[in-house]
Amino acid sequence: MFTTFRGGPSGAWRVTALSPVKGAALAAVHSLSVVHSEAIALPLLPSPTSWRLAGVASHVRYVERREKTLLAQTQAGLGRPEASCAALIPIRKSADWWELTQEERRRIFEDQSHHIATGLKYLPEIARQLYHCRDLGEPFDFLTWFEYAPQHASRFEDLVRALRATEEWSYVEREVDIRVTRIDLAG
Amino acid sequence: MFTTFRGGPSGAWRVTALSPVKGAALAAVHSLSVVHSEAIALPLLPSPTSWRLAGVASHVRYVERREKTLLAQTQAGLGRPEASCAALIPIRKSADWWELTQEERRRIFEDQSHHIATGLKYLPEIARQLYHCRDLGEPFDFLTWFEYAPQHASRFEDLVRALRATEEWSYVEREVDIRVTRIDLAG
Repeated sequence: MFTTFRGGPSGAWRVTALSPVKGAALAAVHSLSVVHSEAIALPLLPSPTSWRLAGVASHVRYVERREKTLLAQTQAGLGRPEASCAALIPIRKSADWWELTQEERRRIFEDQSHHIATGLKYLPEIARQLYHCRDLGEPFDFLTWFEYAPQHASRFEDLVRALRATEEWSYVEREVDIRVTRIDLAG
Repeated sequence: MFTTFRGGPSGAWRVTALSPVKGAALAAVHSLSVVHSEAIALPLLPSPTSWRLAGVASHVRYVERREKTLLAQTQAGLGRPEASCAALIPIRKSADWWELTQEERRRIFEDQSHHIATGLKYLPEIARQLYHCRDLGEPFDFLTWFEYAPQHASRFEDLVRALRATEEWSYVEREVDIRVTRIDLAG
C-alpha cells in the first residue's frame, strides 16, 4: 500500500507554511492531498506549481520490543476529528548514514538521540505515521506525517525542535517542513 | 537504481530449472533477462508465458560492522567471466516475520540461523547480490541473485541446503528457485 502526497492547486489540506529546513525547498503550493493506493502513483511531469511524494508505511526498523509495545499502547490513530492541524516533513539522510550498519544507526537514533523516547513524550496528542521511500527512487528517504489538534500546536513545535537538536539530525541533508490545516467542508 | 528480472522468451540467461520450493511457482519460461534502470519498470500485463520481478540493491539490514568489513574483503563482484551459472531465488516471508522487531529478526537471522556466517563460507566462489522489494508492492520480499562457475555448482547446492535448514527459513512462505546459464554469444 503506497501513500502519495500531492502538493498543488487542490486537496483536502490547505498549506499554511512550507519552509526548507536544510537543502532545497519544494515549490510553494496552495493545497495538499493524501491518497492511499495499491500501485505506486506515477511521478508527475516536472511542474513549477506542483509536486508529488510517495512512500510506504513499512515494518519498524529501530524500535525494540518494549518500545514497540509502549508505542502501540500509547499512540493515537490518524484521522481524529479534532486533529485539524498536520505537518508533512520529508527528510533525506546522507550517504554517511546509509553506510552505517543497523546497530550503529540504532545507537545514534535512540541511545544518543532518544528519537523514540522523545516521540513517546508527545503521545497521544501528536499522532505520527512514517512512510519509507528511500528504496522507491524518491527524492527523500522518509516522509513523516503528524496530526494534532490546534491546542497542541506548541507541543508540536517542541517536538520538532527536540528532534532537530540531536546527533541523528546531523545526518539529515535535506528537510522540508510543510504545515497544513484540514479544509472543513462541513464548515 | 532498480533491477528488473524478466522471465520470458528471450534474455541473456537460459533457464535450466524453475522449481517452487514453497508456495506458488512462477510460470515456466525459456530465458531470463536482467536490466538495471533509474525508474522502476512497469508491471507486465498478466501473461501465462512471462513474468517480471523488480528490486533495489539497498543498504544492509542485519550485518554488524565486523561482518560488513569481512564481507567487503571477501566477496566477489557480479559479472566474472567464469561465473556462467546463476540462480535467482525470490522469497517472501510471513507476516509473523515482519511483526518482529529488528533485534528479534537479527537474533533469528544470525545468532540462531548463522545466515551471514554461512554465506561467508562460500565466498568468494559464490557471488551474491540481494535486492529488496517488499516496499515496492512486489509479490516477493527479496530477490537473491547468485553467480558461480560450473565447477562450484555442488558448493552452491550446499549453500542453499544450509540456508533452508535454518530457523529463519521457517518464516519463508513463498520461495521459487530459478537456475540459469549464461548464453555465450561468442560461442
